[in-house]
Amino acid sequence: MPESSQNFRVNGERLWSRHMDMARIGATRAGGCNRQALSDLDLEGRALLTRWAEAAGCEARVDAIGNLFIRREGSDPNLPVVMTGSHLDTQPTGGKFDGVYGVLAGLEVIESLNDHAYLTRHPIELAVWCNEEGSRFPLAMMGSAVWAGRVALREARAIKDRSGVSVHDELSRFKFPSELKPRAAVKASLEAHIEQGPILEQRGKRIGVVTGVQHMCRHEVTIIGQEAHAGPTPMQLRKDPVRVLAEVLPAMYAAAKRLGEEARFTVGFIETQPGSPNTVPGLLRFTVDLRHPDAHRYEALKQTLHESVQAAMARHNVEGGVSLMWEAPGVCFDPDCIAAVREAALSLGFDKEEMMSGAGHDSCNVCTVAPTAMIFVPCAKGLSHNEAESASREDLAAGADVLLRALVKLAG
Amino acid sequence: MPESSQNFRVNGERLWSRHMDMARIGATRAGGCNRQALSDLDLEGRALLTRWAEAAGCEARVDAIGNLFIRREGSDPNLPVVMTGSHLDTQPTGGKFDGVYGVLAGLEVIESLNDHAYLTRHPIELAVWCNEEGSRFPLAMMGSAVWAGRVALREARAIKDRSGVSVHDELSRFKFPSELKPRAAVKASLEAHIEQGPILEQRGKRIGVVTGVQHMCRHEVTIIGQEAHAGPTPMQLRKDPVRVLAEVLPAMYAAAKRLGEEARFTVGFIETQPGSPNTVPGLLRFTVDLRHPDAHRYEALKQTLHESVQAAMARHNVEGGVSLMWEAPGVCFDPDCIAAVREAALSLGFDKEEMMSGAGHDSCNVCTVAPTAMIFVPCAKGLSHNEAESASREDLAAGADVLLRALVKLAG
Repeated sequence: MPESSQNFRVNGERLWSRHMDMARIGATRAGGCNRQALSDLDLEGRALLTRWAEAAGCEARVDAIGNLFIRREGSDPNLPVVMTGSHLDTQPTGGKFDGVYGVLAGLEVIESLNDHAYLTRHPIELAVWCNEEGSRFPLAMMGSAVWAGRVALREARAIKDRSGVSVHDELSRFKFPSELKPRAAVKASLEAHIEQGPILEQRGKRIGVVTGVQHMCRHEVTIIGQEAHAGPTPMQLRKDPVRVLAEVLPAMYAAAKRLGEEARFTVGFIETQPGSPNTVPGLLRFTVDLRHPDAHRYEALKQTLHESVQAAMARHNVEGGVSLMWEAPGVCFDPDCIAAVREAALSLGFDKEEMMSGAGHDSCNVCTVAPTAMIFVPCAKGLSHNEAESASREDLAAGADVLLRALVKLAG
Repeated sequence: MPESSQNFRVNGERLWSRHMDMARIGATRAGGCNRQALSDLDLEGRALLTRWAEAAGCEARVDAIGNLFIRREGSDPNLPVVMTGSHLDTQPTGGKFDGVYGVLAGLEVIESLNDHAYLTRHPIELAVWCNEEGSRFPLAMMGSAVWAGRVALREARAIKDRSGVSVHDELSRFKFPSELKPRAAVKASLEAHIEQGPILEQRGKRIGVVTGVQHMCRHEVTIIGQEAHAGPTPMQLRKDPVRVLAEVLPAMYAAAKRLGEEARFTVGFIETQPGSPNTVPGLLRFTVDLRHPDAHRYEALKQTLHESVQAAMARHNVEGGVSLMWEAPGVCFDPDCIAAVREAALSLGFDKEEMMSGAGHDSCNVCTVAPTAMIFVPCAKGLSHNEAESASREDLAAGADVLLRALVKLAG
């Protein structure tokens, strides 16, 4: 069995150079990438990948929601595929590795199998999921959601970006098919990804064995007060929506602390209207992102949000409320897939950490259809969704080594 | 002495109809006005006023910072002028009365003096100060500040709006003179204005005898954290600038409460960058407007701001600080001018309230050059800097009656 030999490894230099080549498409001045879903640059990135894959003897096909699939045939073409993959689209000020790594690690596994002349029994399929980021078209993990049957094709194709261009418009422009074919059977799926958090780096671990994804949701809080002049209007006669922020923020930071170190509370967006320094705002809007791996503590975070907003609105004579914009229930990955990742890391002698993912990934959709797990590698300072996103070639190669061995284990 | 007769009054209907005519220039759908400084609409408003003033036998002239002066000659043209006036520019979502009232009340006094065939000894000069609001060009009370010699002409003309157009560009476009002439001598100045607060209405008073203006300042707080993904990044490893807001807001609202009902704390503008719901912001900016009539308590408000920002930054490992953007020390108006207003209100039998102004006005600049006071009239619910700004024709007429009698008293 060559896969148990210490020489059964990927080519780390090739993997790194593929990253650097891909990063030139949509490169930003600050060293990041802006390659948003279904843009010309996104298609250019897919075309580059397809050229590499075809040179490696694979076949490429696309579906009606913009996903790209690259297939390396198995010795028994009728067996269900073993999947891997992630996404090539980036945030507007994204980095070189988020998503891209999972795609290029999958390609690297295919090319390494060629190098080792290793034919798996099951076919291997590399998926490039469309619009994972949701930053251009506001539905994150769109392509995998439609593929998994969790979102209707028609609904997803109707989503528009800020300039009014729909997913359908772009898919038509690039001549993607208009009808979904039945999904091929999938035996198992593994996704490699940078951690996007600081835990592996802080604990000196090279591999994250990802056992699931935490519960997460996004709210928008809108508070309606009354515009008034900052000078003459006594404090007790104001309807000042900022009063709500003054109570909700400390209440929520305290709740996150109380609910353990896995709790997450993020206010990423705050806006006042009209936004004049000498006018009490008539309107306040802010977003609240809440996450926790434990269902009860997750619910406690949500409840504190609702209660603190309601109490502050009543106390300060303003109106409004909390809207749930998006929610992704937590998932637990498949024990056999997790075991394949764990054993691959052990066989390679890498320090590993069993962990929940704090971020959503395409695997959250894939796991509703097929047994799934994920592999994390460290990223510098935990930075992601940031042009300064960075990962070392050694860590990227280590994660791809784990992916290679775990996929071979699953694909036979 | 006709001025002591109960018939020595303004024409309230004409005053009201002038307001309605002026409000058509820059009228907004919600019933307010958007007539920003040195815009085409601002110039259109001044042209309408000039036509009315010339029909009333006055002469108009403009200066190099965009102020407009309308002169009704006195029986002794060599005596110093007695001034009145305010501004015609509005906030982007402003009302029909802020500033406009002080200008139209001054015009109404001139027209009423004509009606009563009353010639004052001193000339009367109606001033329309340029860019009082500071919402287009960020220097509030600009025209009166340059006129009073508190800001250099060149400095003011260099100020740009958000699209890069300077005061100089607009003044040149409208063919204003480029050099300032020496300021004419001013015996006294009175400015009528809506209160922009709820105190007169709440206490059932018709006239505010304004004895001064409270201390006020505007700060910008900038906090630099580090962008990070909202999911994987543990709370204690973040550099989250919103933590500062969570501590400063409650500290400041508590300080304002502790420092008495005249204290004012307003956060009118808050911004996070990049403003993505699932990213810890890398940058937070917010404005803080602080006001108090008492110098010690005013300083205590400022000190609490600085201390709470510094403490929160140190506690949460973020950087940044507080910048003082603008400060107007409080002023006390001239006892003789205040007495003229008080006696006029008494002679007319109006309920009056002696009060400090919570807002800055052009009179804060004028009073550094000449004896000055102000007259307030109620505005509905204290709303101002708001399209719903409203005042009754009876109150507007009452304030103009007081202005008429007080000006005649000062102008002889």
